[in-house]
Amino acid sequence: MRILGIDPGLERTGYGVVEVPAGAGAPRLIEAGVIRTRAADPLAERLLEIESGLAAVLAEFKPEVVAVEELYSHYKHPRTAILMGHARGVVFLAAARVGVAVVSYSATNIKKSLLGAGHASKEQVQRVIQRLFTLTKAPEPPDVADALAVALCHAYRATRMALAAPRPRAAGRLTYRA
Amino acid sequence: MRILGIDPGLERTGYGVVEVPAGAGAPRLIEAGVIRTRAADPLAERLLEIESGLAAVLAEFKPEVVAVEELYSHYKHPRTAILMGHARGVVFLAAARVGVAVVSYSATNIKKSLLGAGHASKEQVQRVIQRLFTLTKAPEPPDVADALAVALCHAYRATRMALAAPRPRAAGRLTYRA
Repeated sequence: MRILGIDPGLERTGYGVVEVPAGAGAPRLIEAGVIRTRAADPLAERLLEIESGLAAVLAEFKPEVVAVEELYSHYKHPRTAILMGHARGVVFLAAARVGVAVVSYSATNIKKSLLGAGHASKEQVQRVIQRLFTLTKAPEPPDVADALAVALCHAYRATRMALAAPRPRAAGRLTYRA
Repeated sequence: MRILGIDPGLERTGYGVVEVPAGAGAPRLIEAGVIRTRAADPLAERLLEIESGLAAVLAEFKPEVVAVEELYSHYKHPRTAILMGHARGVVFLAAARVGVAVVSYSATNIKKSLLGAGHASKEQVQRVIQRLFTLTKAPEPPDVADALAVALCHAYRATRMALAAPRPRAAGRLTYRA
């Protein structure tokens, strides 16, 4: 199963493609990166840029599912959050356009599934992502780590669901390779 | 000049097509309506619905410009505002996709240009739209009136800009036909 995690943002949209082996084993990092837009460009152009970037990633890696963070109720900067909403809308649209389902997880669930605690700094998320995928450096910018975090959250959840199901019993436990 | 005014919303996206005659005269209502989505459908499906509705309106009426309300800083319901942002992002994207520019006006400017005052209730906006276009009833839901309001705001502004320019001097003053 291939999962595309996305951390939407108008300036930077992080993405990360993670593969869960069919039998058992740790999720594998296929590719991760960031789609940047220029602040000087009109909003419409920037959204178009994000959409075409996502369309290219979807076409190249053909994920079964897109995973994003859920919205929450309280944002420190509502205007920035609404602009993020513009980018997030484009993410959902790009996925729907190619018939890929979108799942979302709360920030707390994402952090819990990775770190065991519902609260963690950006640096902690970057560090755990670095370790899980045995990268030489923490993914930069943090949007990339956040995109991988939500993809992993779905990977763990999907695998646990497979384990909970009566068949196939062979579906293994996840063990980190790092 | 044809202007497509849009009031983006996840549940209801109002739209209104207004035409400004080449010489002089009041803006004319070409068509207005609303794109609705079902709350039970996944977010991605709803955004796709909004986009295909907008694409159809853009293709049918071929506006020179799309007008929307500017974002403001304080929303009573941030989460709802972020979801509106998803729909608003789709509006910008749909316009960019067909190469139509998007302009935005503050809520205050829109109301001032229609009513002379920066603050007005939804009902006041509906009533003034009804009068300007000599409709038998106020446009319902209010999203339709709001979409027409922003289109008219741009129509007035564009015409005033034409008047301010040295040529063509023939560009007339706007007078309501109602």
